[in-house]
Amino acid sequence: MHGRTSGETVRLEGNARERFYDSRGYGVPDGAALELAPVEAAHLLWREDIEGVDGQDLQAYLASEPGLAVRFLVYKDLRDRGFYLAPAERWFDDPPAGIDFAVFPRGEGPWGDAVEYRVRVVGERDDVPVSALGDATLAVVDEESEITYLGTDHEEVTGTSTAALPTGVPATLLGDRVAVPDAPDELYERAFYGQPLDRNDGGDLQLSLVEAAHLAGDVLALDRSAVLEKGHEVEGERFDRRLRVYRALRERGVVPKTGFKFGADFRTYADVESVDDLGHSELLVRVLPVDHVFAPRDLALDVRLAHGVRKTMVYAVAGDEVEWVAVKRLTP
Amino acid sequence: MHGRTSGETVRLEGNARERFYDSRGYGVPDGAALELAPVEAAHLLWREDIEGVDGQDLQAYLASEPGLAVRFLVYKDLRDRGFYLAPAERWFDDPPAGIDFAVFPRGEGPWGDAVEYRVRVVGERDDVPVSALGDATLAVVDEESEITYLGTDHEEVTGTSTAALPTGVPATLLGDRVAVPDAPDELYERAFYGQPLDRNDGGDLQLSLVEAAHLAGDVLALDRSAVLEKGHEVEGERFDRRLRVYRALRERGVVPKTGFKFGADFRTYADVESVDDLGHSELLVRVLPVDHVFAPRDLALDVRLAHGVRKTMVYAVAGDEVEWVAVKRLTP
Repeated sequence: MHGRTSGETVRLEGNARERFYDSRGYGVPDGAALELAPVEAAHLLWREDIEGVDGQDLQAYLASEPGLAVRFLVYKDLRDRGFYLAPAERWFDDPPAGIDFAVFPRGEGPWGDAVEYRVRVVGERDDVPVSALGDATLAVVDEESEITYLGTDHEEVTGTSTAALPTGVPATLLGDRVAVPDAPDELYERAFYGQPLDRNDGGDLQLSLVEAAHLAGDVLALDRSAVLEKGHEVEGERFDRRLRVYRALRERGVVPKTGFKFGADFRTYADVESVDDLGHSELLVRVLPVDHVFAPRDLALDVRLAHGVRKTMVYAVAGDEVEWVAVKRLTP
Repeated sequence: MHGRTSGETVRLEGNARERFYDSRGYGVPDGAALELAPVEAAHLLWREDIEGVDGQDLQAYLASEPGLAVRFLVYKDLRDRGFYLAPAERWFDDPPAGIDFAVFPRGEGPWGDAVEYRVRVVGERDDVPVSALGDATLAVVDEESEITYLGTDHEEVTGTSTAALPTGVPATLLGDRVAVPDAPDELYERAFYGQPLDRNDGGDLQLSLVEAAHLAGDVLALDRSAVLEKGHEVEGERFDRRLRVYRALRERGVVPKTGFKFGADFRTYADVESVDDLGHSELLVRVLPVDHVFAPRDLALDVRLAHGVRKTMVYAVAGDEVEWVAVKRLTP
């Protein structure tokens, strides 16, 4: 059997519907014939269920349309894993931007209603705007044609960390950090602000600029504008974004501490009652501007690292509101 | 006892030599008096061994000189860990660029000859040029004043992976990858080039552009210039650097495969005899231009990830020659 390109689709005549749609979920029937998406036609070529498309073999057909080879690799991989899937533009009345495939739950197909994954196919060298995360499963095809699946979800970030704090605590701006000599116990021990200068003596604390900016003028007797000015001097606009996210986390009862050792902005603790009884930190948070664009490799790096330290990678997109997007490795 | 600033140093009169130099290794004696580096004076202030410097207490003194607070944190931490150390400009006749401290082996001090670590103090927000790596131990002080030590060394990269290859194998450029239909066994099975399109059927291989560029015109019957052109189109100059490093690795008997899942350019296998008997990959390689400048956070991310997957992070600096620099987390 041979396919013939007709507009956006590939047409198979004869008993194609019976052979490829009824039990195997390829294409859209048109009487006994079938209209295939190019990626479906490529898959049938690969399976040697059809002999050619417009007289071309698999390699030639894949080379005939930019991006088809990469979409085919993902389509094939999902089929190999036992899924039926349909091109997004066929399945959704109003296809979500950037989504390539609707993947049906295992055992179901285009004759059902449910969609398990909304897959966006991404080449290793493609740009991924942060706005594309949240509803999509990314299928990233690396340069060696291996596929990494990344699930992205909007995340609820909440916790129970609240502690009453004293006010008017004296503090000094020391370069790009703040010293609090003889700090009251609650500050570090209960609320987990700062870091003791000496681990055996909790008296003198060092606070980060973002911690100090959050506390200045109320808890700390420290000129807030001087802290903000220093923050802008050393980090520019990034400082405002980080402070906004820091505040949002504290308001949600979550304690942010530096994520430096993990290459992130913050690691977070949802339920801090006392520093002596600190649990495992749950999230790694990276603060991003709304127009941030990822290289897929950086996403892979973050997600792999977070997984290795048993934390969840969360991007905090600092727009008018802070949006939280969790990204996890996923095996469909 | 009070210190007094005199030029670059702080002078202690009285029996300062006896108290602070003879058994504790601070400063440079001048008769019974002592000349201290500011960081040493700050440490004696912190220990309350002296009462003030120019009438200032610790916080005021630390605030008096940019960068002193951060250098003090590292000096103090290394002292707390049981090391004696000296400012680089005092210790080395010709102080290496960017080195702040000579740290002596445990139990030794400035009266000996040996140096255990050449420490460069780096704030989380400082730039670290890749040229600064190789002989230095970085002490990175993060925004919460925690210190991460990163050891950097020039690395010998060698292996025993060699395999005879056929020539003139037909291949097709498919977008930003290369297909080799019905590839000879040696290519993948022995030399670990490419990736089978189907895991159960090693016949059809997909090669990355960098693998294909390395093999084109000899092993592959494929126009090398077309592959290079495609490489430039999708990666620009980065493609040349990656190809240079890829070749250098293969020439050293090391097999590079994509490091995408680890956010790196390559993971490497030193001793490949057969793909069926593949060991653990040893290195993660990131290719960099000679003028690359790190944010310390990116270094922390790479090194943490590599550690978590039991590999060594190696930066391949692609100048006229490729230079290899390994970076590891270190606990002094």
